[in-house]
Amino acid sequence: MRTHEAGSLRAGHAGQSVTLAGWVARRRDHGGVIFIDLRDASGVAQVVFREGEMAERAHRLRAEFCVRITGDVVRRPEGNENAEIGTGEIEVYATELEVLSEAAPLPFPLDEHLEVGEEIRLKHRYLDLRRAGPAKIMRLRSDVNRVAREVLHERDFVEIETPTMTRSTPEGARDFLVPARLQPGSWYALPQSPQLFKQLLMVGGMERYFQIARCYRDEDFRADRQPEFTQLDVEMSFVEQDDVIELGEQIIAGLWKLIGHEITTPIPRITYADAMARYGSDKPDLRFGLELTELTEYFADTPFRVFRAPYVGAVVMPGGASQPRRQLDAWQDWAKQRGAKGLAYVLVGEDGTLSGPVAKNLSDAEREGLVKAVGATTGDCVFFAAGERAPSRGLLGAARLEIGERCGLIDHDAWSFVWVVDAPMFESIADSDDVAVGTGRWTAVHHPFTAPNADWADTFDQDPENALAWAYDIVCNGNEIGGGSIRVHRGDVQERVFSVLGISEEQAREKFGFLLDAFKFGAPPHGGIAFGWDRICMLLAGADSLREVIAFPKSGGGFDPLTSAPAPITDAQRKEAGVDAKPEVKPKDPVPTEKLTEQQS
Amino acid sequence: MRTHEAGSLRAGHAGQSVTLAGWVARRRDHGGVIFIDLRDASGVAQVVFREGEMAERAHRLRAEFCVRITGDVVRRPEGNENAEIGTGEIEVYATELEVLSEAAPLPFPLDEHLEVGEEIRLKHRYLDLRRAGPAKIMRLRSDVNRVAREVLHERDFVEIETPTMTRSTPEGARDFLVPARLQPGSWYALPQSPQLFKQLLMVGGMERYFQIARCYRDEDFRADRQPEFTQLDVEMSFVEQDDVIELGEQIIAGLWKLIGHEITTPIPRITYADAMARYGSDKPDLRFGLELTELTEYFADTPFRVFRAPYVGAVVMPGGASQPRRQLDAWQDWAKQRGAKGLAYVLVGEDGTLSGPVAKNLSDAEREGLVKAVGATTGDCVFFAAGERAPSRGLLGAARLEIGERCGLIDHDAWSFVWVVDAPMFESIADSDDVAVGTGRWTAVHHPFTAPNADWADTFDQDPENALAWAYDIVCNGNEIGGGSIRVHRGDVQERVFSVLGISEEQAREKFGFLLDAFKFGAPPHGGIAFGWDRICMLLAGADSLREVIAFPKSGGGFDPLTSAPAPITDAQRKEAGVDAKPEVKPKDPVPTEKLTEQQS
Repeated sequence: MRTHEAGSLRAGHAGQSVTLAGWVARRRDHGGVIFIDLRDASGVAQVVFREGEMAERAHRLRAEFCVRITGDVVRRPEGNENAEIGTGEIEVYATELEVLSEAAPLPFPLDEHLEVGEEIRLKHRYLDLRRAGPAKIMRLRSDVNRVAREVLHERDFVEIETPTMTRSTPEGARDFLVPARLQPGSWYALPQSPQLFKQLLMVGGMERYFQIARCYRDEDFRADRQPEFTQLDVEMSFVEQDDVIELGEQIIAGLWKLIGHEITTPIPRITYADAMARYGSDKPDLRFGLELTELTEYFADTPFRVFRAPYVGAVVMPGGASQPRRQLDAWQDWAKQRGAKGLAYVLVGEDGTLSGPVAKNLSDAEREGLVKAVGATTGDCVFFAAGERAPSRGLLGAARLEIGERCGLIDHDAWSFVWVVDAPMFESIADSDDVAVGTGRWTAVHHPFTAPNADWADTFDQDPENALAWAYDIVCNGNEIGGGSIRVHRGDVQERVFSVLGISEEQAREKFGFLLDAFKFGAPPHGGIAFGWDRICMLLAGADSLREVIAFPKSGGGFDPLTSAPAPITDAQRKEAGVDAKPEVKPKDPVPTEKLTEQQS
Repeated sequence: MRTHEAGSLRAGHAGQSVTLAGWVARRRDHGGVIFIDLRDASGVAQVVFREGEMAERAHRLRAEFCVRITGDVVRRPEGNENAEIGTGEIEVYATELEVLSEAAPLPFPLDEHLEVGEEIRLKHRYLDLRRAGPAKIMRLRSDVNRVAREVLHERDFVEIETPTMTRSTPEGARDFLVPARLQPGSWYALPQSPQLFKQLLMVGGMERYFQIARCYRDEDFRADRQPEFTQLDVEMSFVEQDDVIELGEQIIAGLWKLIGHEITTPIPRITYADAMARYGSDKPDLRFGLELTELTEYFADTPFRVFRAPYVGAVVMPGGASQPRRQLDAWQDWAKQRGAKGLAYVLVGEDGTLSGPVAKNLSDAEREGLVKAVGATTGDCVFFAAGERAPSRGLLGAARLEIGERCGLIDHDAWSFVWVVDAPMFESIADSDDVAVGTGRWTAVHHPFTAPNADWADTFDQDPENALAWAYDIVCNGNEIGGGSIRVHRGDVQERVFSVLGISEEQAREKFGFLLDAFKFGAPPHGGIAFGWDRICMLLAGADSLREVIAFPKSGGGFDPLTSAPAPITDAQRKEAGVDAKPEVKPKDPVPTEKLTEQQS
């Protein structure tokens, strides 16, 4: 249907007759001569309809008409070359024109430099994708898949597809459910991740598994969450943490090479404890310093009651002393929005004197040593958090990021990767923010199949608060882009973990009996990782939202503006699907819900 | 955790100390010396625990214990080599043994030569996959994916993931439905194929799309159907039928090369009309001849009332005249099971005389010329079908396959590929066996977006019965393994197709208004194909069932013996998911249901 792709034409083609097919990107009329930019997937070429019949016919062309053109490639007159496009040295003198299909007036212009509302773009995503930016992202994502698979195939990984219609196993998030017409009253669930299946594959001796897997989570859609998302899911047998990390680095390095960035391996590691202490986050953005300072000891005997707390810490805002009052007030609002009471601060004057409401509450000695203790200098503002350790550090960590942005400390062209290792196995249920209440005091930080590390293999259940896991997350510029763990592969260890979590044997059977059964038959040591594919694509594309890297994303509330899904169903559909059937089973005692899977969205 | 993979050891490793990890495949005790076959994903190596402490410890090893072993590689004594395994020249004298995890007694032995019931294999699929056969199939399937993607990436195809949670568009089969918690009363549907999305991507200028896509169809599970299945889905813009076929051949050739078979391209083509006339099937098995003969003319003036029919045809069973009476009766039962009244036959005696109940009803002339007319010879049996053309040919086509098997005419090592082209656009609703009734007399054979071919572009709606489409199926050994079409890309043509199908403008809008909207904006000519991935893997693996090539298949009724999905949900889940919400909308007039997609399962 065409002899050449439009974007492929070069000076060397001059003198040839070519047939092109594509869309009218622009049309210009210069004294009866019609110029169009003909766009196809490969690029753009300028087509000229000189005066006479061809120009007549070209008059009816409008933006986004789909056309086929035959013409002669000629070099553009000297001085008329366009160095900005690959085909800028030539143009095509049209000798034939066929309109393949016409286009109605567009709901929005496709000029890539124009801002267009997201809702209308998604409703007409088929037009949005004709724009250079979105089209390029789709191609990048395809390359991301290709490169990751190349790395994995080179290492003999086996790609295995796991089921989409599976069993509901209550987890951190709600399952999407599917009624089973042939067993009315029974429902399938869409998987929150292939976690259980990939572990079963390891028991099955597959040794090296991967899948670019669709996952589903029925959450209240926060700013940038999709009900369905994609992760690169990997599992390996006979490995230790370092093996999984090494593989993860090969994958990540391959991906960033796609955008011309060489990642130096090994990627640095930081312990979870360190990350929390120094950056107030388990996903620290290391593109800039500005570490937190712990002052609990420093204020051990302070007269200031607020600072007599289990934890006191500080972060410095360089030059922050010159903030006007209303900006300091805005910080208080910012902190309150995050659930804190406020954000205490001290301003360091140009002469070194401290001011602000907190300063006068401190002792002379405390005032004297403070600047040095927190590493501040004249003109800075020192923000404090005091209270329970975890939320206080969280507040300071968030303040750190905010300061980084406001003070321009973040190099937006930089890429900073770090592995966060030695995560705790358990956290107190009171501190967990995404898990339903179980019957124990503790919940699994990663998931209940995560193994204690070598130091804690014997003692994790004696000191759950401090026990560390073989769990690892990879963080890029403050975004968690992947995470995994070495799994428990022995029944006795698994029972001890369940015991800490307050999961009875019966409850364990009810929830994942088939996995426990499998583990009775010579389960190999294994571990894995899952990468948040949408987020990684978003970072690589420099996009602002996960929606930009998904071909047909949902907008808020899980609504698809293009197809108008979800939609009402008919009574006949309800009846046939067996939606209303309720089997006569007694509800069981509530079973504690745990995060069973590693999920990356 | 190991220095070598067990299956990689060769004579050249002799003298090295190695650490292996894997499973105890077999254990033998020869006078106090313990031999085990240690199996990992790479293969098997023989490990020897000589007398003394090591042999003591090895005594507790049982089948499928997961172990780590360190030992010295030694050449086997001359005469003790095992040529059947790659590691047959060596064995490993164990110096260390670590039991990584124990195995309970197995529910079935893993010996690959033993037949084990499917239900128990699927319930313990993690054990089944340790057997050589199933494990090899999983690896083959992974390679199938890899090779297809390589072919497509080389040709600049873009891999794009389309949504799983989308809009219910009633099609040939029922949708699986998912309640939308955030919009109670509204439901998502799981896609029966990405058909509409891939066409939208073409409108979006992506030009070359592919995806190995999961598809869902809530059918009554026939023998070998899965509720979720996989297809390789492809769509291209600015192409004609030959372009899609050429690409399809590259993919198929690449896949069969994986099992050492070179496909000669171009693959032959047969028209749909020819396939029906000569083989009584739209997916003819061309590994053998035995074509049908049409005898409608021949019997135009027959005295035998049964043969005065719109169609009479015959197929010959070589040597079939010697079938005992009860076998001839069995053919009648066979035909009745297929919904026919019976299967008329004539036996050709060794002296050329015809016998059997039909023979005496024929005229002398008819008897005289029959053997020549059907290409039979002495000793053959001639089977007849008379009646409406389509079912009669279908019966003869089925008889042909049955004869091919019974008479050993099929070379089971042969691969025979053929494209079936020039399919009709429409079929009478009365003849369609998989589409709900619409309001028109006609239904689309492929789907309503399939374009008429060049000969019928102007006239398809004047003569729907005979109109031919640009639609093509690829058939391998009598299995349809892929199919596709060139699509309608112009609104006026689409309206004429809808008009033939009896779909009103309002109904069309209701069902796929978003696609029709998209087509208003310069839709390019496009077409595509979908390959039935499970079936292709089954053929390549030489497996008997689709279940063999799926990691975790469903058994009958959509039940998963491993996880026991589907399962009852709790009242709380029902309530939260909004299952019982019914929006107050008036049911619309029934809308004709059409096959909207190309599906390959």
